[in-house]
Amino acid sequence: MRFISEQRLDDGVLEREFTLGEIPGTLWTPASVSPAPLILMAHNNGLPKADARLVARARYTAAQGYAVATIDAAGCGDRPRSAADEQARAELRRAMQAGEPVDEILESFIGPMVEKAVPDWRATLDAVLALPEVGGPVGYSGGWTALGIRLAVLEPRIAAAGFFAGGFVPCAQREEARQVTIPLLFLLQWDDEGNPRQRALELFDSFGSKEKTLHANPGGHTGTPWFELEDGCRFLDRHLK
Amino acid sequence: MRFISEQRLDDGVLEREFTLGEIPGTLWTPASVSPAPLILMAHNNGLPKADARLVARARYTAAQGYAVATIDAAGCGDRPRSAADEQARAELRRAMQAGEPVDEILESFIGPMVEKAVPDWRATLDAVLALPEVGGPVGYSGGWTALGIRLAVLEPRIAAAGFFAGGFVPCAQREEARQVTIPLLFLLQWDDEGNPRQRALELFDSFGSKEKTLHANPGGHTGTPWFELEDGCRFLDRHLK
Repeated sequence: MRFISEQRLDDGVLEREFTLGEIPGTLWTPASVSPAPLILMAHNNGLPKADARLVARARYTAAQGYAVATIDAAGCGDRPRSAADEQARAELRRAMQAGEPVDEILESFIGPMVEKAVPDWRATLDAVLALPEVGGPVGYSGGWTALGIRLAVLEPRIAAAGFFAGGFVPCAQREEARQVTIPLLFLLQWDDEGNPRQRALELFDSFGSKEKTLHANPGGHTGTPWFELEDGCRFLDRHLK
Repeated sequence: MRFISEQRLDDGVLEREFTLGEIPGTLWTPASVSPAPLILMAHNNGLPKADARLVARARYTAAQGYAVATIDAAGCGDRPRSAADEQARAELRRAMQAGEPVDEILESFIGPMVEKAVPDWRATLDAVLALPEVGGPVGYSGGWTALGIRLAVLEPRIAAAGFFAGGFVPCAQREEARQVTIPLLFLLQWDDEGNPRQRALELFDSFGSKEKTLHANPGGHTGTPWFELEDGCRFLDRHLK
């Protein structure tokens, strides 16, 4: 793991870009706590780690006393995509513009994308946890629920997770949801254009966790109210601090 | 309004029993804040104001800097019930034991019970707000969602409300929910035996409020996790402080 740049933010949070082999990542660490519990923060379906909404959430979370790590996993962000991925995405755009159903297309490339992303996230978890300023336990907080489900099932180090309902979850992860038993906060935008409400409620129902809480707010995909970020951190506080 | 007993609790909260004409009530006021914003706290469907769960919620809320008032409204708690009410409740018990549908029975006595309770709650609101240690704005926090809907529609002084989904809401209040426009926190027990989940989700959908948040947790009617009490107070803080 090699740090390639760093920036100290106003609230004392240290923001560092790193590379881990081919994986580009960002790590935020708080000034106040060391070692700080680690949050893995993933953006949905390969959106780049530099996306403004993810960065804002990461900075806020780090200021609450967490180390926060994000990466562009294989095929995500600015990393090269396979020809098959490019083709699937082109087909997705075409189908969306034509108002055609997109479930099959999403299934065809998000399923494999999750599988390919997992090893990069686990390698990052190992590397970041080896830093003296980062400790356990580990939380997952992500727009990318499908990846979160996969990681929660595979990784006993992940002790709590916040998921966002607004993203396509492939069949395999919908099945795996029953095996997730860690405490969950599941955030739903009630009027999310592209993500059927009923499907999200069924996914919430599926999770095997004894402690799972659904927070739903009116509005579309990007309309999550700011107070949910505070609530999300308090959820993490209850389980990781 | 006449205070008939008082008790200072460990955290400085003053707990006073009062009467207002025929209405028996309890008022909790914090040591730290004066005037304190007022919360009307109603228990579901006429359960007595001395119920341990309501008292615990009221004491906690007062310790967070709120004045909290509850009453036994007409026909509620230990106050006399009409012969018709007694008969409806006997019929309800019989139908529940027999496993028969109870919606019609509930509709027949909870609708009128809400109507009869409203004047007592409004009189209490007037009287309590006249105390120098109590100020506006006013919130409603209650197991009794039907009463809360009615009050929220009638009372412009109520600026925010926390409702519990686990209670029968008569047709009239299900209709009126569209007229409720204040910020809401709606608390649902996902596996509430006697209260169909789908009906609760439809009610959440109906509320006219731009800001409304659903919190759902697994478990039965009385299984609400303790952290929802904290969340409920933070919701009130956002709108009343």
